[in-house]
Amino acid sequence: MSTNPVAFVGLGSMGAPMARNLLNSGFTVTVFNRSRARAEALATDGVTIVESPHEAVTPGGIVVSMLADDAALEAVTLGKDGFAERLGEGGLHISMSTVSADTSRKLAREHGGRGSQFLTAPVFGRPEAAAARKLWICQSGAAAAKARARPVLEALGQGIHDFGDDPGAASVVKLSGNFLILSAVEALAEALALGEKSGIDRAVLAGFLGQTIFSCPIYQNYGRILANRAFEPPGFTVELGMKDVKLVRDAAEAATVPMPIADLLHARLLTGLAKGRASLDWTAIELSTAEDAGIAVK
Amino acid sequence: MSTNPVAFVGLGSMGAPMARNLLNSGFTVTVFNRSRARAEALATDGVTIVESPHEAVTPGGIVVSMLADDAALEAVTLGKDGFAERLGEGGLHISMSTVSADTSRKLAREHGGRGSQFLTAPVFGRPEAAAARKLWICQSGAAAAKARARPVLEALGQGIHDFGDDPGAASVVKLSGNFLILSAVEALAEALALGEKSGIDRAVLAGFLGQTIFSCPIYQNYGRILANRAFEPPGFTVELGMKDVKLVRDAAEAATVPMPIADLLHARLLTGLAKGRASLDWTAIELSTAEDAGIAVK
Amino acid sequence: MSTNPVAFVGLGSMGAPMARNLLNSGFTVTVFNRSRARAEALATDGVTIVESPHEAVTPGGIVVSMLADDAALEAVTLGKDGFAERLGEGGLHISMSTVSADTSRKLAREHGGRGSQFLTAPVFGRPEAAAARKLWICQSGAAAAKARARPVLEALGQGIHDFGDDPGAASVVKLSGNFLILSAVEALAEALALGEKSGIDRAVLAGFLGQTIFSCPIYQNYGRILANRAFEPPGFTVELGMKDVKLVRDAAEAATVPMPIADLLHARLLTGLAKGRASLDWTAIELSTAEDAGIAVK
Amino acid sequence: MSTNPVAFVGLGSMGAPMARNLLNSGFTVTVFNRSRARAEALATDGVTIVESPHEAVTPGGIVVSMLADDAALEAVTLGKDGFAERLGEGGLHISMSTVSADTSRKLAREHGGRGSQFLTAPVFGRPEAAAARKLWICQSGAAAAKARARPVLEALGQGIHDFGDDPGAASVVKLSGNFLILSAVEALAEALALGEKSGIDRAVLAGFLGQTIFSCPIYQNYGRILANRAFEPPGFTVELGMKDVKLVRDAAEAATVPMPIADLLHARLLTGLAKGRASLDWTAIELSTAEDAGIAVK
Repeated sequence: MSTNPVAFVGLGSMGAPMARNLLNSGFTVTVFNRSRARAEALATDGVTIVESPHEAVTPGGIVVSMLADDAALEAVTLGKDGFAERLGEGGLHISMSTVSADTSRKLAREHGGRGSQFLTAPVFGRPEAAAARKLWICQSGAAAAKARARPVLEALGQGIHDFGDDPGAASVVKLSGNFLILSAVEALAEALALGEKSGIDRAVLAGFLGQTIFSCPIYQNYGRILANRAFEPPGFTVELGMKDVKLVRDAAEAATVPMPIADLLHARLLTGLAKGRASLDWTAIELSTAEDAGIAVK
Repeated sequence: MSTNPVAFVGLGSMGAPMARNLLNSGFTVTVFNRSRARAEALATDGVTIVESPHEAVTPGGIVVSMLADDAALEAVTLGKDGFAERLGEGGLHISMSTVSADTSRKLAREHGGRGSQFLTAPVFGRPEAAAARKLWICQSGAAAAKARARPVLEALGQGIHDFGDDPGAASVVKLSGNFLILSAVEALAEALALGEKSGIDRAVLAGFLGQTIFSCPIYQNYGRILANRAFEPPGFTVELGMKDVKLVRDAAEAATVPMPIADLLHARLLTGLAKGRASLDWTAIELSTAEDAGIAVK
Repeated sequence: MSTNPVAFVGLGSMGAPMARNLLNSGFTVTVFNRSRARAEALATDGVTIVESPHEAVTPGGIVVSMLADDAALEAVTLGKDGFAERLGEGGLHISMSTVSADTSRKLAREHGGRGSQFLTAPVFGRPEAAAARKLWICQSGAAAAKARARPVLEALGQGIHDFGDDPGAASVVKLSGNFLILSAVEALAEALALGEKSGIDRAVLAGFLGQTIFSCPIYQNYGRILANRAFEPPGFTVELGMKDVKLVRDAAEAATVPMPIADLLHARLLTGLAKGRASLDWTAIELSTAEDAGIAVK
Repeated sequence: MSTNPVAFVGLGSMGAPMARNLLNSGFTVTVFNRSRARAEALATDGVTIVESPHEAVTPGGIVVSMLADDAALEAVTLGKDGFAERLGEGGLHISMSTVSADTSRKLAREHGGRGSQFLTAPVFGRPEAAAARKLWICQSGAAAAKARARPVLEALGQGIHDFGDDPGAASVVKLSGNFLILSAVEALAEALALGEKSGIDRAVLAGFLGQTIFSCPIYQNYGRILANRAFEPPGFTVELGMKDVKLVRDAAEAATVPMPIADLLHARLLTGLAKGRASLDWTAIELSTAEDAGIAVK
């Protein structure tokens, strides 16, 4: 009999390996996913599958959520069959999705009104990193929530970085990070286009940068993808990138901070959508850079 | 008696430690610098100081140049008392300055017409890296020039990256690298402003980024500078940054490649100049980002 | 006894002179305004003042609305005490506010469901133009609505321009027009800054442009305001300008049309808000242009 | 026998009708054009054709120049067979080309050193306007030069606008005007794309704008061209537009004035060049706007 029950809501490409890691760390995991098929894949591992967010949680227990966007997160929490009501007094919601600071703050208030705690804890890392417990986790919220969440988070990532009490803070950090990643992609795309039209091999240039001044995985991995224009299969789509850049722009507007690169990224993604590239990897914003330079991409 | 004579022209904050490293590697070094005072500082190390670029070289020998800009490089090479004529048949000019591809190509032609070889070999790294032989060197030019230059370059850096035959190629790579660095600075500045106005500590956010998704020196060092707005003393000034971004824009225009981030960086630097910040560190473009967001910087 | 009863909702700086013009054209006018004081000012002219949007309309009658934003328009129409329900079968709502295409389409559907017609009919012109019946009116919606609205619109403006059946179309046209006006302001601001720092008098340059290649009121009036930096009192505030540019950006996003100048205008307005200029005239975005150029504005 | 001899150098699409107008106003005109064929077309009108700029002028006389760019203007003035030397003491050079302020200032100095006067007098208007004496002329320079040039300028345009003593001033005004025109084109292109993808007819929208808030020729004519994408034959090419926008950017850099719209226009024109549109009308920057929005242009 396990002493560590936890509910997990949202079994997408990130949520599934995370739920499995909790199981492997000795947690008793009950899962809900809108499409049951994805949950079934975990059944053989020993998770319990339920039919609604509501059923997944136990009163006063812990629930981890990992959803696609603000609306989905709100729905599983506060919607019909949402888990907030049942979680109730003494519960803890660890919210790991990439959402707006406002949504995080609103959920913290809603849970607070029901006697539950709320911790914002979004992550950096692709599905492979999730599977390998190599996620970087940002957290913000009440101290007690952090203390109670710690064993769960330690089973999911390689480090927990704290950003204080405001439940919105970790959401802003997550959005800032995604903004910086896509900014690096755009800058790389421009530099590679300049190189290409100046007679320099894209792969050689990207390789050089990743080995020298930008020797970190973001530049190495994205440099490789961009050099080869390997936009399929997507790791993270143009459509999802647009969702995040919209959140960044909303955050910038709310904080009255002009962010010209965010506007540029939005324009690039919008062109991607206009040209039918919604399901390519978000690095496919490079195609716009190339087209503007008259580079014929096959 | 040394078997490795080499001339070194240009003893700025980069050139001086590079010349010293050549000396320490057993080269016999003859130096020229426009302002003699900087050359004197190396005299006790055993270099020979001369009064003109012309005198520095020996016919058929090797000369390394490290100047501030295209005009200075052209002057020491082709100007009155320039070394090209005397270098002549069998000579080798290793050109390590950050200049335009056109200047590199022009000098290659000029030397070729006098029977000399020319190698474009700009570097990445700050003065400390130069002193520690930790420069990254990009090279492009004729194969024979590369073979002959190798011992010299190995005494100066931690790796040589080849970009083919075109003498302009390595110059484009160098400019692309500086463009990418300043692009990262601008993106960081925007993210930190968003964080700051959302209640997140600048140093904590920058520290997090440098430890996780951007764990490479560029983000770590510039993140620290930006977090603290430590724009003095400058490592590389707004004025020099403008010189390089102009060269990037010229290269982009010549290659017909729109580079919107380069235009943004140019605007930021121009505002820096307009506000009397020419001699601050080039990361001081951040002040514009902050001011646009209504952040009062003391 | 009048044969032309009409309800008028929203007596701001535009709505008040418009309501007066209807009265002067022989309409029997019943008005509602959230702040009753503004309505009182019209009482001596012979309008009837009521206490709610609901009371203002007669079943099957005509109502004209002129509100500050989408939320206010929705509130008077569909909110508590809104007029849609009472307007009912055979009614006509002439909606003249600057709102999103989506709001116009939604209201058309809502009224349709209650047996009423809806006409989107936003206007161009400042309060003086409203008073002088010099407004330019764009309309879109059902043909029957246009026919019935014509006498009302003719009493308000100098021309009616038709944009077809889609209730959203005229809203997009209105937003496009405001976008173009502020684009002209930004371009003028940049040109005047270039002139100023090149030794050319701002007023002379603006005057020349308005007399020659740009001899139309937009350039003449805004050129004069910009030349003198006469941002108070505001004709239309930075805050309202931001509302409109947000709507433009939302429309652009919905239509997947990147609009880089709209992004630039948004950044300028955001800086205006960040610097406490919300209630200056929207042309005060010029202050950002000047500051970026290091021009000291007192 | 004429009492009004004048030399005219540069018979392009603007210069030719201007020279003819001088002739028709009673001036005795001697012309030089690099390609003699264009000069021949004027021979029947009674002009004298010569073989070099030098031969065109009489010592102490008046010469009008209308060339394609700075280099061409400098060549006919100061180059081999240039007219400056022969013009000499008491001469007057009326320079009507669109060139940089620096070139105008340099020529003023050069002529001053030879005892001649120099007047910068660029024009606004297309070839049809030149033929109809409807050009708008900006002038700057010494008062005596203005007085002497007046009869010539009055024969060419519909008004002379003065910008003071600095020979560079009128050049900056001309560049600012072209910048504003192309800014209006870009803004119109964005608005029309938004309209088009929102279901609004391009021609109807452009027509409305030109009849109402932007009732001036620039918006009317360019609105029509843009609505129909009538980029051939060109009135003024992408290539020439690029020349002018480069001059604007150089002027902005020299004056330390960031001009983000100028950067955007440069990017649009660069894409035009990259896509092989150099000889389309400069309004063809619209194609970029359309392509970014995924609009298929045949």
